[in-house]
Amino acid sequence: MIATKAYAAQAATTPLTPFQLERRNPGPHDVQIEILYCGVCHSDIHQVRNEWGNSIYPMVPGHEIVGRVTHVGEHVKNFKVGDLAGVGCFVDSCRTCPNCQAGLEQYCDTGMIGTYNALDKEGKPTYGGYSTQIVVDEKYTLKVPTNLPLSGVAPLLCAGITTYSPLRYVGVKKGHKVAVLGLGGLGHMAVKFAVAFGAEVTMLSSSPSKKADAERLGAHHFALTSDKQTMQQLANSFDFILNTVSAPHDYNTYLPLLRTNGTMIVVGVPPTPSQVPAFNLIANRRSIIGSLIGGIKETQEMLDFCGEHNIVSDVEVIDIDYINEAYERVLKSDVRYRFVIDIASLKK
Amino acid sequence: MIATKAYAAQAATTPLTPFQLERRNPGPHDVQIEILYCGVCHSDIHQVRNEWGNSIYPMVPGHEIVGRVTHVGEHVKNFKVGDLAGVGCFVDSCRTCPNCQAGLEQYCDTGMIGTYNALDKEGKPTYGGYSTQIVVDEKYTLKVPTNLPLSGVAPLLCAGITTYSPLRYVGVKKGHKVAVLGLGGLGHMAVKFAVAFGAEVTMLSSSPSKKADAERLGAHHFALTSDKQTMQQLANSFDFILNTVSAPHDYNTYLPLLRTNGTMIVVGVPPTPSQVPAFNLIANRRSIIGSLIGGIKETQEMLDFCGEHNIVSDVEVIDIDYINEAYERVLKSDVRYRFVIDIASLKK
Repeated sequence: MIATKAYAAQAATTPLTPFQLERRNPGPHDVQIEILYCGVCHSDIHQVRNEWGNSIYPMVPGHEIVGRVTHVGEHVKNFKVGDLAGVGCFVDSCRTCPNCQAGLEQYCDTGMIGTYNALDKEGKPTYGGYSTQIVVDEKYTLKVPTNLPLSGVAPLLCAGITTYSPLRYVGVKKGHKVAVLGLGGLGHMAVKFAVAFGAEVTMLSSSPSKKADAERLGAHHFALTSDKQTMQQLANSFDFILNTVSAPHDYNTYLPLLRTNGTMIVVGVPPTPSQVPAFNLIANRRSIIGSLIGGIKETQEMLDFCGEHNIVSDVEVIDIDYINEAYERVLKSDVRYRFVIDIASLKK
Repeated sequence: MIATKAYAAQAATTPLTPFQLERRNPGPHDVQIEILYCGVCHSDIHQVRNEWGNSIYPMVPGHEIVGRVTHVGEHVKNFKVGDLAGVGCFVDSCRTCPNCQAGLEQYCDTGMIGTYNALDKEGKPTYGGYSTQIVVDEKYTLKVPTNLPLSGVAPLLCAGITTYSPLRYVGVKKGHKVAVLGLGGLGHMAVKFAVAFGAEVTMLSSSPSKKADAERLGAHHFALTSDKQTMQQLANSFDFILNTVSAPHDYNTYLPLLRTNGTMIVVGVPPTPSQVPAFNLIANRRSIIGSLIGGIKETQEMLDFCGEHNIVSDVEVIDIDYINEAYERVLKSDVRYRFVIDIASLKK
């Protein structure tokens, strides 16, 4: 077993504190990774605080992991010691169901095995990336482009793929008008990808203060959702709305902005659901689709795309001992646009 | 002007009674049609009783019209006297917006002009098919196959195209598993079309009494929505659910029945909207799409398809003086599956 330093939550109501865990010795198909950076996802907070009701303690959060390979099992084919490697939201799945076979492990019929707050196939709890190292089957390990700043790569493993995957699935391309609703960790990646795919991108936000940032990120237009006149002018104008908002909100404020055959993509999970009057869908053959992260194959495609197009997340790098304060700032949306832990700070 | 016998509602709270109206003299592009049959759509009742708040009185309902051409304008190309002809839910639209140009007149940017309860381009009220004749621009008139019983053709103009269009749009074909929710005027047509397109079709109904009918209509399976065990067994099993229910209901009872990438098609407009928790969409990349009737080109395609495959609606033919009683029976779902008025009864 491999002694590993980490930060863990011991209960839903206590701050994260230093913790010692043991990683398994790498098996023949495993890659051992020295973690360099780990992103801080809002879902880390939900789970640390047991807001989804399924928390296992002690919990070591973190599923936006980049690092360097320090050991490979004898059957590992795609990684060698010294390679960069990434780990996202899951570290295993059943591998046999139709979804796993189709490269859609995130929709595994028996449930993907989360990178943390899950039980592995032997019934042992999984621990995430707020730690110095991790051991993962190479099938669930990603190759990381060598030309990108690694701190900005980490959030690609969740915020990146969460927005890349649905934009690809619905086929966003040049000629499409895409609105991104909400400028946070997900929204800022959605803008970068939609722009990279050639779409005309409008940032929809409730904060006038985000206008300059939206433009810097590449958005062609900015619209204030509180401005009724603007919203009326935008009626029937978008092919797609990528809705990244996790706070309670009414889908019907935005559905009328879709043109005929337009689609709202939902990637946020508000704590209270929106009502959906059928008329707002029927009126222009509009649709709403949900999407959850992405499979391993597509996550690799996304990372390769980011390498080719120099796309990374905008991050604020923090030391591990700042994590509890960082959580409070995430809850206030006071981060542009992702905290990333420099895991070197955990090795001191 | 052409004196025309009809049945009309004079107000939201009074029964339909005999009425005399005048049709315009046919213009150069118009077709004059002697109406033979007109279907009774639930939306006739909604509008007669001003349940959508936009009613114009006197109102002559009816938008499932078949008849025979008695006169054609000098520039009419596609119809001649003696031809069968059909008229559906709209008789005009702007003709210039992108949707009209794309053959999606039902989503016309300035609004299609309804066959009744609308104002035409001259600001005059339109009157529907509970009448002996109608004059319509040939562009909004359908060719009717000659091999089908005409009473069963009438409902194709609304119930038929409402179900045919979305099944085509989402691409239902052999290999797909399709559930039809609700066995009424729309549902029974949905079963016939989905079967004709090669899908494996399951009827989802709350009425055990509909099992035999579902099978007679061609459904391969029948599932009782009140049977929790059956519903659990059907989780993640359908590619599409065509939801025809207009009564208040919870979409979330049925969304879990969709497999990964599955779509619920909504064609009914319940008076109270369903909530949609994002998780039920995100969990398996599920979607909900709305659809409204169909454009002229597709309606013609549907009628031709019905002619080739001998598809008509199951109807109960009534005389016009039974219409008020028929409405009460529609409200009790006591019709299998569409009332159709024999307009000969109006000419007596």
